[in-house]
Amino acid sequence: MRDRRRTLPFMATPHPAAASSPRPFRIAELLAVGSELTAGETRDTNGGELARSLSLQGVSVRRIVALPDELALVTAAFVEALGAVDLVVATGGLGPTPDDLTREAVAAAVGEVPAIDPGQEVWLRSLFERRGIALPGANLKQAWLIPSATAIPNPNGTAPGWWVDRPDGRVAVLLPGPPRELRPMWRDWVLPRLRKRGLGDRRLVRTLRTYGIGESHVAELLGEPMLRAANPVVATYARADWLDVRISAVDEIAADGRVTRPAAEALAAAEATVRAALAGHVRAEGETTWADIVAEATARAGVRFAIVEAGTHGALGALLAEVPTLERQVAHGSAVARDVAEWPVEDEAVAIARDAEVEIGLALVAHTDGTQTLLRAAVAAPDAGWSRVLDLRLFQHGAHGRFRAGVAAAAFLAEVLGEDR
Amino acid sequence: MRDRRRTLPFMATPHPAAASSPRPFRIAELLAVGSELTAGETRDTNGGELARSLSLQGVSVRRIVALPDELALVTAAFVEALGAVDLVVATGGLGPTPDDLTREAVAAAVGEVPAIDPGQEVWLRSLFERRGIALPGANLKQAWLIPSATAIPNPNGTAPGWWVDRPDGRVAVLLPGPPRELRPMWRDWVLPRLRKRGLGDRRLVRTLRTYGIGESHVAELLGEPMLRAANPVVATYARADWLDVRISAVDEIAADGRVTRPAAEALAAAEATVRAALAGHVRAEGETTWADIVAEATARAGVRFAIVEAGTHGALGALLAEVPTLERQVAHGSAVARDVAEWPVEDEAVAIARDAEVEIGLALVAHTDGTQTLLRAAVAAPDAGWSRVLDLRLFQHGAHGRFRAGVAAAAFLAEVLGEDR
Repeated sequence: MRDRRRTLPFMATPHPAAASSPRPFRIAELLAVGSELTAGETRDTNGGELARSLSLQGVSVRRIVALPDELALVTAAFVEALGAVDLVVATGGLGPTPDDLTREAVAAAVGEVPAIDPGQEVWLRSLFERRGIALPGANLKQAWLIPSATAIPNPNGTAPGWWVDRPDGRVAVLLPGPPRELRPMWRDWVLPRLRKRGLGDRRLVRTLRTYGIGESHVAELLGEPMLRAANPVVATYARADWLDVRISAVDEIAADGRVTRPAAEALAAAEATVRAALAGHVRAEGETTWADIVAEATARAGVRFAIVEAGTHGALGALLAEVPTLERQVAHGSAVARDVAEWPVEDEAVAIARDAEVEIGLALVAHTDGTQTLLRAAVAAPDAGWSRVLDLRLFQHGAHGRFRAGVAAAAFLAEVLGEDR
Repeated sequence: MRDRRRTLPFMATPHPAAASSPRPFRIAELLAVGSELTAGETRDTNGGELARSLSLQGVSVRRIVALPDELALVTAAFVEALGAVDLVVATGGLGPTPDDLTREAVAAAVGEVPAIDPGQEVWLRSLFERRGIALPGANLKQAWLIPSATAIPNPNGTAPGWWVDRPDGRVAVLLPGPPRELRPMWRDWVLPRLRKRGLGDRRLVRTLRTYGIGESHVAELLGEPMLRAANPVVATYARADWLDVRISAVDEIAADGRVTRPAAEALAAAEATVRAALAGHVRAEGETTWADIVAEATARAGVRFAIVEAGTHGALGALLAEVPTLERQVAHGSAVARDVAEWPVEDEAVAIARDAEVEIGLALVAHTDGTQTLLRAAVAAPDAGWSRVLDLRLFQHGAHGRFRAGVAAAAFLAEVLGEDR
């Protein structure tokens, strides 16, 4: 199987360890079925999530493909993918309507005929009975199986998935499109089975979230050798609120199969280098949000807080909405923000803290024009008798500038609370 | 060209009018290039936007494909797409780094060799001069062209696009990945040229946004014949804040090329039927948001307003943040929302209107548990001496429940302001 795959034109770069330790699931393709996707009416979010999950398990995704509800196109996509990769995961098209044709497509691709499975039919009928509805005839196709397919239970819907085994060891997995149905099926049923059959080299990943430094500056500080190395892979991603540096590593394996450098060691070394190069700019790890950082900083300081903002369309409040220690948020219209210097941010921070009866008040005023955003923020602790003011000019403007002003105020609050006093 | 395409396995359903009125751009494929996409680190948003734009111009998108930065894979994708569709649009991979290989891939696919174009080089050097930076050697590849490519000017970045003409009339378009660069290039340069060369039958689309009715109920009221008709196409899309009914129509054309029923007529007839079937549930059209609706309702009533909410994590404020007539938004922590009946919504609505010195106050309190969300909202006009209260139970819960509570309060405000008084 390895040798055969190597001759295919679409194959991804062969893994260095492929020859010494054959593993079934190294390369995957993801299909998302639905005309609403190719018409641009809705966006596929499953592909990215599954790609991330597979990538962390050492499986390379060679393509994520969105397809319309057209039997010939979807069938051809299965035929092609099942001839080129180890694992095909398709989402969507498992509903009861004639438009839902993913089952038909994979059946045609593997040359089998779907039939109602008695066990699945019993399950489906009991599901509708519990809902007090007669099973509509159309839904019977959700009890279909083909001989080479195993049903994947769906605890949150009427569409079971399919796990289809091919004679050459390749697998096609069909899952329903709604994320709240797909996610538990993937996590609790599919992923454990994939793992049992063997995946690629597990990839260790650490994401360092930096703030207050630009992408080109980060690239310069890290240097080209580090950014072009194959293992660990170090890459930067500019998000709206962070510049992420993502480090990922796999075990280095010699020709004789011996691990010459474990992934954890390579990752730790690269992380230390990145942290040293970027000094104080690394503010968080992983998926940490500014709300998490402010939640932690206020909890550690043992304070509750309230915010008041102007000229930001509530950007700061939206950013921190889920913070448990946030007691009140007030947003004013933009009339007060014509001149950021005129709005008394320190007084406002004190007033909102007093009104909400909390220890800390945070006030933010911002004004954005066509090219930049000026902001002024104050953190005040009226009972403790201190306050701090931040003045900043951002090169972002408009809605993006307002969002970044909110981030700057959140970062300022976390900074101030973290200081020794 | 038509006949050749018809034999290909991946082709979309031929258009009924294809034989009588050949048009160059009927079927398109979209490629998004970047390993960050197939690793699931970032999501492709360009594909959906371009698909929507093409779909409205009568071009069917047969696939949207995300690919990693691997020359062999991207080249193979161009070869395959340029053999199967009329138009290939690729986004991403036009940066200056060795990873950016979309130019190399399309050059290899069409068998040409890229070279620095003197005109593009002059433009690029002057761009860097204006920024006061020496042109880095790596960026010179952004001045590349191949003989069959025309440069597409990029007013917002250093990466020009490519328009590649094939001898058989097919076209490949390469655009940079950042949306703020891509969008104006698509709208102002590419789309006008595509139109000049001729597109598919322009599709007329109208989206009716409904509120307060479930998807299965809508399907029942519209009936299966309408939902399965080929022209006009009527489809429902459940969004977080709306249930959309999208109607789209093309001209009906007889075998002799005569238009037997113009798209506008078919659309108008279907729209009338849908509006009658769904009665008062159609609240808006197109891309209208709840912020738009409240903005219009308050402007028409000649009032400004302020909001206060509790137990919603600021969901209502976030929803209405951009409304120009919103003078103040206050969000309280969830402590007050343990029992929605205890929080005096009418008094709070009056108080916030008085504090903010506006005509209308809107107060919302919501409590969500594991299965549902209870909410209570009040609209008060203290000077005019009236108020109205809404009590509602939603089947959504958690963050979704809070969001829907915000939507319900916004809908209530618009309703109340729209009443004759």
